[in-house]
Formats: sequence, structure tokens, C-alpha cells
Amino acid sequence: MPCYSPSTGRQIRAVLFDTFGTVVDWRSGIMAEVDQFAHRHGIGVDAAEFALSWRARYQPSMQRVRSGAREFVSLDVLHRENLSQVLESLGFGDGRFASGELDRLARSWRYLPPWPDSVPGISELKRHVIVGPLSNGNTGLLVEMAKYAGLPWDVVLGSDVSRAYKPDTGAYLTPARLLGLDAGEVMLVAAHNGDLQAARSAGLATAFVARPLEYGPGRDGELVPTDDWDASVSSLTELGAQLGL
Amino acid sequence: MPCYSPSTGRQIRAVLFDTFGTVVDWRSGIMAEVDQFAHRHGIGVDAAEFALSWRARYQPSMQRVRSGAREFVSLDVLHRENLSQVLESLGFGDGRFASGELDRLARSWRYLPPWPDSVPGISELKRHVIVGPLSNGNTGLLVEMAKYAGLPWDVVLGSDVSRAYKPDTGAYLTPARLLGLDAGEVMLVAAHNGDLQAARSAGLATAFVARPLEYGPGRDGELVPTDDWDASVSSLTELGAQLGL
Repeated sequence: MPCYSPSTGRQIRAVLFDTFGTVVDWRSGIMAEVDQFAHRHGIGVDAAEFALSWRARYQPSMQRVRSGAREFVSLDVLHRENLSQVLESLGFGDGRFASGELDRLARSWRYLPPWPDSVPGISELKRHVIVGPLSNGNTGLLVEMAKYAGLPWDVVLGSDVSRAYKPDTGAYLTPARLLGLDAGEVMLVAAHNGDLQAARSAGLATAFVARPLEYGPGRDGELVPTDDWDASVSSLTELGAQLGL
Repeated sequence: MPCYSPSTGRQIRAVLFDTFGTVVDWRSGIMAEVDQFAHRHGIGVDAAEFALSWRARYQPSMQRVRSGAREFVSLDVLHRENLSQVLESLGFGDGRFASGELDRLARSWRYLPPWPDSVPGISELKRHVIVGPLSNGNTGLLVEMAKYAGLPWDVVLGSDVSRAYKPDTGAYLTPARLLGLDAGEVMLVAAHNGDLQAARSAGLATAFVARPLEYGPGRDGELVPTDDWDASVSSLTELGAQLGL
């Protein structure tokens, strides 16, 4: 049962989703895990600031891989390294916590709550098209995330399959190739205009979803589409209708 | 909720399945598609013999890739080439059918019925462990197969991800690596003792499921386990209990 991109008329066979911020609420999930960690260890930290600080190290750490300054390593590894940096910036240097405890905290990025519309929206789309993540997360992380959050993906191909981090072109084209689809038969859904811009440059169809609370109340996420994406919605449950499903 | 291999005590985190013959009844599915094709084109063929003849070319065609005589090509490509050979052996040479018609028939391997116990058995296991195919099928083929047959996989990593065909070791180890698991945390379920032997050599846990009708009535599939696999069942709905789930 094919559907067509409303603005381009291209048939969409797979709808793939950015995950952190777009499908799951990383900030709330990380805050909850950090709060538990702090309580367990009897330390005082501002969990909201901790989550933002950890996330702020996300793009710079991937940039070293994108630029070629560093060989590809998985996002699990980057999350763990970035966690050590955050703790150090707060005065908790090496040795303050057992390494296994930090490994466990670093895996918090697997256990994040979905936005309320994510599971129903993706489930509806799954009836008509292939659904999956198109994320900088590695495959193991994304599979665990899906099981925890109940995300009904048809396929999970992490960044460790393409060995490329968005917005590098390979990150968008590898999943299309492995699904046997042309780039134009694949749609990326994201709450981030920059991600959509790169996806469009790679030839994918694009849909914006607004996630104003991604960074928390009073800290606006990207509220509006900055380009004429093929679709634009305020909830994933609206996307099927916009795609004419 | 971890489970343990009954014979080795290893914790199983992912249960991956051979697909053709183990999860889906390729013979019945191919027969049905061939019958339709023959009817549409007004030709007489024995669909059961056709299916067996097509399948008989499966291993030799992959062997050329395994041996290095040929660069990796996807199973979709091999199925298409092997189809032409079968048709030629029946006296239907090039040009007898439109190429698009043959492309479509070659994709019959995506639309195969599951054995009756496959969906309930996999669904039960999915509550406890990661489930997915470990097949020589390519990713696009396996995703379409899952959507058609209702197979509730958590992850689909085709042979075009590992770029290796079973029983090459890489075919078993790449999915484990991408899931972030040790080989011993992954179990292969198969109806074929040779597949299990190779999986065990690669360090995976193993489970045999008997599919006596794989090649049709009167043509026995592999009826019994030929080694002390970690589990042995006559239906996938028995596997959870044997694994102590």
C-alpha cells in the first residue's frame, strides 16, 4: 500500500526516524537516571543541568569521527567518555566511582521514555510502510531502546552499520541501500532542521515534527520548520494523515 | 530477565533464527507463486519440482561468493540468476518472459508463509530476549518477509550487513558484534545441523528445531539433531520453556 510524499509525489516505502529528541525524551530519561545515581552515591547534582551538559558533548565528540581525526567508535563509547568529562567538570575525577557504575550510567541512553505520540504514531505508519530509526545511536543501543520504550520498528540499522554519523551523507544512504530502496523512497522524520537539510541533500524525503520540550520547559527546542519539508507535524500521530495514508 | 543455555549455563541475550525452512515454509510459498506465474503465462510446470530445483541452486550460488570466486552480491541477485537457470533448464530461455515479470517472481522469496508455531514462538521469546533473523537473506528481503509473515523481530541484520554467507564465521559474529554481545550470549535456532555446527564453532549457543516437511511430504528434512545442541525442540513454542523462560 504505497504512499506518496505530498510535495514531491515520490512514493514513500520507508519512514525512518531520528530518535534522540524526535522519538524519545532523552532529557527526562537522563535526568531520572542521574537522579538515581546521585541518590545512590549520596552526591548532590542538578540532574537537568547534568543532562544538558552531557548532551552538549554529543556533537563535538562525533565531529572528531566525522572529520577523520578519530576512527569510528560507537555512540556507546562516546557517551561513556563524555560522561567522564561531565563528572570531571563537576569535580568528580577518576576513581570517585567504580568503573562498572559509570558504564551502567552511560547506558542510560538506552532507557529513555518515548514522547506520548511516538508509539501510536509509529504503529500506525508501520501498517503502510517500513519503519525504523535513522539515528546516530549504535545498533545495540537502538535495539535496547526499542524494547524498553516499546517502539515497534521493522528494522534497526545503527550508525555502526554505516560507520557514519549524521549529517554525513553515508548515514542516510546506507539504510536506503540495505533496504533496497532509492533515497527518494525513504523519508526521514526529525525534530531538527539541520538533520532534515542533510537528509534532503542526500535525496531523502523529509518530515519535521516539533518537539518544543526537547531541552526542557523554558528552553525552546526547534519550534518551527525552517524549510519547505515534505511534511510538517506537531505529533507523529498526524504524520500518517499528512502522507495520505 | 536473563535466561541461560541449559547445557552451558551461558546467559542468552539474543535468540536469532535461520529463516528459510526454519521460520518460513519456503517450499509452499514458492510453489504458490510459481503456480500463479505459470497460470498467468499459460505454461505447464510442476510447481513442487520447480521450487526444489530453484532451491537446489541456492548453496552452489553462494559458494562462489564464499570461495572468493565472486564479489559479494545479495541473495536477491542470486535468486534472480538462479531463476533464469531453472527456467532455461525447463526450455524457457531468455526472452520468453519480460524481465520485470521475472524480477517479480524472483522476489517470491519475500512472501513466504511462516510455520504455524513461528509467530507465537518468536513472540513469546521476544518478551525475554532480543529476537531476529540470522539468515543468508539480505536486509530488504528479510524486512519484507517479516512484514508479510508478521514476524515480530527486534532487529534485522541481513547477510548484506556482514557481507558473508553462512556457514562463514563472519555471518554469525557480525550480528553479535553489532548487538554489543559476546558470541556466547547469542543463540542460533535452525532446522539444519550444519548451520548449528558452524554457529557453535563461532561460539554461539545452538538450538535445533525439527522441520520434517521442509522439502515436502515424503522428502524428509533433517528430522533429528545430530549433535548435543543446547536445546532441541519440535516447535518454536517449546523453546521458551526449554530455555527456562
